Amino acid sequence: MSSKKPLRVGLVGTGFMGRTHSNGYSQVSHFFPELAYTPVMQAVCSRNAEKVQAFADQWGYKSIETDWRALIARDDIDAVDICTPNDAHAEIAIAAAEAGKMVLCEKPLARTVAEAQKMVDAIEKAGVANTVWYNYRRLPAVSLAKQIVDSGKLGRIFHYRANFLQDWTISADLPQGGAGLWRMDAEAAGSGVTGDLLAHCIDTAMWINGAISDVSAVTETFVKERLHQVTGKVQPVGIDDACIFHCHFANGSLGLFESTRYARGHKALYTFEINGANASIRWDLHDLNRLEYFDHSDEGIVRGWRSIHVTDGDQPYMNKWWVPGLGIGYEHSFIHQVADFLQSLETGGPCHPTFRDALETQKVCEAVLDSASSRSWKDTGVTSFAV
Amino acid sequence: MSSKKPLRVGLVGTGFMGRTHSNGYSQVSHFFPELAYTPVMQAVCSRNAEKVQAFADQWGYKSIETDWRALIARDDIDAVDICTPNDAHAEIAIAAAEAGKMVLCEKPLARTVAEAQKMVDAIEKAGVANTVWYNYRRLPAVSLAKQIVDSGKLGRIFHYRANFLQDWTISADLPQGGAGLWRMDAEAAGSGVTGDLLAHCIDTAMWINGAISDVSAVTETFVKERLHQVTGKVQPVGIDDACIFHCHFANGSLGLFESTRYARGHKALYTFEINGANASIRWDLHDLNRLEYFDHSDEGIVRGWRSIHVTDGDQPYMNKWWVPGLGIGYEHSFIHQVADFLQSLETGGPCHPTFRDALETQKVCEAVLDSASSRSWKDTGVTSFAV
Amino acid sequence: MSSKKPLRVGLVGTGFMGRTHSNGYSQVSHFFPELAYTPVMQAVCSRNAEKVQAFADQWGYKSIETDWRALIARDDIDAVDICTPNDAHAEIAIAAAEAGKMVLCEKPLARTVAEAQKMVDAIEKAGVANTVWYNYRRLPAVSLAKQIVDSGKLGRIFHYRANFLQDWTISADLPQGGAGLWRMDAEAAGSGVTGDLLAHCIDTAMWINGAISDVSAVTETFVKERLHQVTGKVQPVGIDDACIFHCHFANGSLGLFESTRYARGHKALYTFEINGANASIRWDLHDLNRLEYFDHSDEGIVRGWRSIHVTDGDQPYMNKWWVPGLGIGYEHSFIHQVADFLQSLETGGPCHPTFRDALETQKVCEAVLDSASSRSWKDTGVTSFAV
Amino acid sequence: MSSKKPLRVGLVGTGFMGRTHSNGYSQVSHFFPELAYTPVMQAVCSRNAEKVQAFADQWGYKSIETDWRALIARDDIDAVDICTPNDAHAEIAIAAAEAGKMVLCEKPLARTVAEAQKMVDAIEKAGVANTVWYNYRRLPAVSLAKQIVDSGKLGRIFHYRANFLQDWTISADLPQGGAGLWRMDAEAAGSGVTGDLLAHCIDTAMWINGAISDVSAVTETFVKERLHQVTGKVQPVGIDDACIFHCHFANGSLGLFESTRYARGHKALYTFEINGANASIRWDLHDLNRLEYFDHSDEGIVRGWRSIHVTDGDQPYMNKWWVPGLGIGYEHSFIHQVADFLQSLETGGPCHPTFRDALETQKVCEAVLDSASSRSWKDTGVTSFAV
Repeated sequence: MSSKKPLRVGLVGTGFMGRTHSNGYSQVSHFFPELAYTPVMQAVCSRNAEKVQAFADQWGYKSIETDWRALIARDDIDAVDICTPNDAHAEIAIAAAEAGKMVLCEKPLARTVAEAQKMVDAIEKAGVANTVWYNYRRLPAVSLAKQIVDSGKLGRIFHYRANFLQDWTISADLPQGGAGLWRMDAEAAGSGVTGDLLAHCIDTAMWINGAISDVSAVTETFVKERLHQVTGKVQPVGIDDACIFHCHFANGSLGLFESTRYARGHKALYTFEINGANASIRWDLHDLNRLEYFDHSDEGIVRGWRSIHVTDGDQPYMNKWWVPGLGIGYEHSFIHQVADFLQSLETGGPCHPTFRDALETQKVCEAVLDSASSRSWKDTGVTSFAV
Repeated sequence: MSSKKPLRVGLVGTGFMGRTHSNGYSQVSHFFPELAYTPVMQAVCSRNAEKVQAFADQWGYKSIETDWRALIARDDIDAVDICTPNDAHAEIAIAAAEAGKMVLCEKPLARTVAEAQKMVDAIEKAGVANTVWYNYRRLPAVSLAKQIVDSGKLGRIFHYRANFLQDWTISADLPQGGAGLWRMDAEAAGSGVTGDLLAHCIDTAMWINGAISDVSAVTETFVKERLHQVTGKVQPVGIDDACIFHCHFANGSLGLFESTRYARGHKALYTFEINGANASIRWDLHDLNRLEYFDHSDEGIVRGWRSIHVTDGDQPYMNKWWVPGLGIGYEHSFIHQVADFLQSLETGGPCHPTFRDALETQKVCEAVLDSASSRSWKDTGVTSFAV
Repeated sequence: MSSKKPLRVGLVGTGFMGRTHSNGYSQVSHFFPELAYTPVMQAVCSRNAEKVQAFADQWGYKSIETDWRALIARDDIDAVDICTPNDAHAEIAIAAAEAGKMVLCEKPLARTVAEAQKMVDAIEKAGVANTVWYNYRRLPAVSLAKQIVDSGKLGRIFHYRANFLQDWTISADLPQGGAGLWRMDAEAAGSGVTGDLLAHCIDTAMWINGAISDVSAVTETFVKERLHQVTGKVQPVGIDDACIFHCHFANGSLGLFESTRYARGHKALYTFEINGANASIRWDLHDLNRLEYFDHSDEGIVRGWRSIHVTDGDQPYMNKWWVPGLGIGYEHSFIHQVADFLQSLETGGPCHPTFRDALETQKVCEAVLDSASSRSWKDTGVTSFAV
Repeated sequence: MSSKKPLRVGLVGTGFMGRTHSNGYSQVSHFFPELAYTPVMQAVCSRNAEKVQAFADQWGYKSIETDWRALIARDDIDAVDICTPNDAHAEIAIAAAEAGKMVLCEKPLARTVAEAQKMVDAIEKAGVANTVWYNYRRLPAVSLAKQIVDSGKLGRIFHYRANFLQDWTISADLPQGGAGLWRMDAEAAGSGVTGDLLAHCIDTAMWINGAISDVSAVTETFVKERLHQVTGKVQPVGIDDACIFHCHFANGSLGLFESTRYARGHKALYTFEINGANASIRWDLHDLNRLEYFDHSDEGIVRGWRSIHVTDGDQPYMNKWWVPGLGIGYEHSFIHQVADFLQSLETGGPCHPTFRDALETQKVCEAVLDSASSRSWKDTGVTSFAV
């Protein structure tokens, strides 16, 4: 391993995403030994010294910080990885870029397009490597979907639909805001399901099917007031509990998106389907190693949806893992993104989705929220999307 | 069988629906022997004498007519069943009602709300028994869904979503209009997928979840011109090839509906799902004997979506058929509707959906089309729905 | 319809199978109008005059008999259809054949090979048309499986496995014998699951994959004593509650069969799977309109089991029914068998499975029971099977 | 991490299993931070110095050996982990035990009962901690199945069935023996699918449902001769390509097991199902995060198989991973076994399956092969199984 070039990472945030990213850094060199770079888990940063030390011990970070500005100031950090709540993304990313650090940022990039635009400006001015963790792209079945669409098998696209259904906030007794629940707080999160869940769906959709041009949306907040953990008061809920929109893609196809945290029975049901003139594809996060594929060119009497168990060595990323039939998990999408980021350092190309790509997704999210509040169609301003 | 009261039926139309209805009349007394009434297949009417005679021979109709006015004029006809293209529904139904006949009409009731309103007025003025063939309600799994929701198991409803996806019109070489293809002709059909497919979804949705208050829709016509079979010319296509809308139900839940004939791989994928605070239900026409049900009150470690094979004697209609595990088919929904219509004659109550119920569905369809053309939300004017 | 030749049927037995056959006779001419023959429901026979009259009224039989010998003696009966408990099959079938009647007999053909052999001798001596109601062959998906295997798509066959799992006799309080429960009585039924359920699996298997040469079996009777409905006493249970066997087919492939009435959760789960060098097929009665098919010659990255919704017009029998996507039910297998029997009268060929075919199945069943009781392999004596 | 006690591991073998175990050692402390012990990847051993160094670099082993005897002789090794082909298990394990090392051994424990018995004798004489890598037990869904059965929810057990179907050896061009293909060589492997695949099924089955008492089996070798990679000659194939057996469990239930490498379309389809009087469970490795469960005590009209997505924090092992709905993979079963082994060091109890447990599984495997070759039932000699 001494022959590899180190990428010294400083992680900000030790929550759920802090764990998935740390796992990515830990695992990547075990499964992608050919890469020239290897991550070095140099430092992790969070406000509570005791907790961050425990996290560092658990994951093997060499040092800790309790102030992200101190982390950015260190010379022994090459890349800053941002896993904080959304309201801290912009400030940290901009400061890191200005300090010449590479920046990896959790999604959504920001709370608003305005914030996101500033981040892109700073990153591009600094010219630093960057990526945003829209991790689902890199599940093998999703990458395979992209590969199939790009191959032209589907022909002209007519429909794209996706949903992301959860049920964890149905209880009116669930508080909002504070530790573990910042996603319920509009100030910290920027929005509810739109930024948290639909942003994933939009990233995948535009990656696979191109730009979304205009949107017509509806949002709903089913539980109007909740106890806020920080203020200790029952306060109005500012986030969208559910969001539905239909849209046009630039290629003329129709899109349909839905997300909610009130779909009893669905833990994290992210599904998408794309229908072309010749073939269709669908996928479901609950069975993440499978891709369903229908090909109209199959002989008629034996034509049907194929359930592809995406675990063969010729399918995306799967030559890195086990043998056919043996599935991998959710966390592997992050390992793959680390691998692709390291690869991009070798080649000098971008690691999509970049900050700029994520800005486009942010534009769609904002158009969706604007459409819902104004009860009218909104143009997104997005005209193309990097693939 | 001599002890049963006859219901002498005159059928208008010998196409796909003419067959399903004829099967209903043929079969009902074999499986519902307790009914006081039995259908007598008195006459069938269609323009082509040779074809209608063959149809009569095949199905056992006692006589034929080639003019529906002659059929209505006959004294030996108690009920007129309308299976024509949509553009003939109103005229026949109104004439039949005025002649004092019971009227059974294929869905959608009419091409427009204005037509439908006239039909309801005529029917109600005549005071004749009536029903509209929104047959899917009476598939056992769908009826069971209704029964479960009515039992209160779901609690407060948050979401209802349905789609009806087909793929039979993707080829640009498919002509429009004329024999077998009147559904492609806006003049004959009134609309495309909205009246043909979404109308089914809307009927089921309002039956299960109550009135739809307002809608926001988008439609698309993917193939702009097609050869018209009757005129022999390539003409603009007037129908909607695809239609998506979201909506509010009167009970505060969000609705999401989609239909298309351009979803490659789906022959007739009518699915719906309803999410309540405590439980959820979903169904799929392609596996019509199954209902999926999730109950949050199940013990946590063994909680999951239940795949209910709706073939037991204590499930709707299934005590009439075979033994547990042995499924029935699509056509049985029509047999059930005949049975329920005969039952309603016995009890004197309505056989839902009545013409009035179907008018409400028509209002939603029209609001959907208006919303799509105006790119704005539309109120439906529907405030309640018979259950 | 006057131009059709009548086949005057006399039905013996008014139970579950009496209903499925009657439905077959009622429906066949509605959906197979091209056939030269049409069934005439001439008479139905059962011991209880009141009940058989009600059955005749319900199904449209023209007359009744309470003694099957009287039925056979009638000149106006062309074909005798036997739906009695198994212990009466031989006597009725032989008498009918000797009277020159065509004979249609429910499966299993008999309780023993000896009985079955006498029936075959009588039938062949009389030279009358005959068939045995192994109905599952004629579900479209099963017929399609046969068609695919015959086309050679699978290549060399390695494995065939089938099971038929039920759960309706688990309660020790269920009585044995008598009305509705003769299948629990070894004297009336001949055996338990072997003749009732495995016989179906064996018929399908040999039809698709050829003769079964030898077998090694185990049986179990989980509930050793039950109240007998007729004697009123708690008596030893004589039937096999469960039966498992493995076997060799004449083509060198391995077979595996299992049946039980103690598989909680399975109402009538008849499944089979066949694995060839190039392709595989599987099917499940609970989703009877689907066939799963795997073709190794599909391109690797998009290879997977196809879920074929067998409802297209180019799939077996389905040009007779509705439109793609709309499923049919269990009962349709009997309609198809009536159609094929009528067709065989036109062509003069046999309607498989004939009595002789069913004798071969009986040999396998008997070898299975012998193997279980002797705890040793048994040759079946079957060397070929009509396809 | 300094506060944890080290377990210094020496790994023998760098193939597929060498990777899965190394991953287990790498990952366990990231996800089970509460454990007192932590693995130290002290040394890895394989014959080829260059390859083993590359493996050590990739996985972070501190040193290498090319002779397993040298590894065992080292003082800085606490535990020897054996991932060699089966023919080396016994010699290494016995030597390691005699050297006072803890021993972790890949399954099957040995090629024969005689070998396995010697291993157990040595291990128990040495009194060293030990475990055998029947990893599938520790997939959360499988552990949940065990928990449910142990809770008594199923009631009296009637049936247990399992199969393990693959298709990777169908081509007659695949060589036998040598690198990557020792599983095809009877001398190296001991047997074919029986030891490789059925051993897994038997371990799970006896863990969940208790001892298997007697067996009746059939085996088949479909491709009789293959090129041997080592000898360079076309030689007879000595392994079983397929194996089927039925059996009695000590609790009176019937068992049915099948394994093959000739089931086209199945990559690694390990499934099992257990039927009790009150409830049933089934599982499928291809969808490893799901468990299906049927509970007859559910209300009749909404009763059905539940599809449990085993990703909640109250389900086995899942409080260590992500959030509900996000699945894990195959490899995690090994991480869990490492965790449980480390836990057993803390508590002083055994880590099942121990060598002794694996000996019982070996007895069943051997009885199966004996039964097949003698075409007769064989007692296994197993009377109980540790749970």
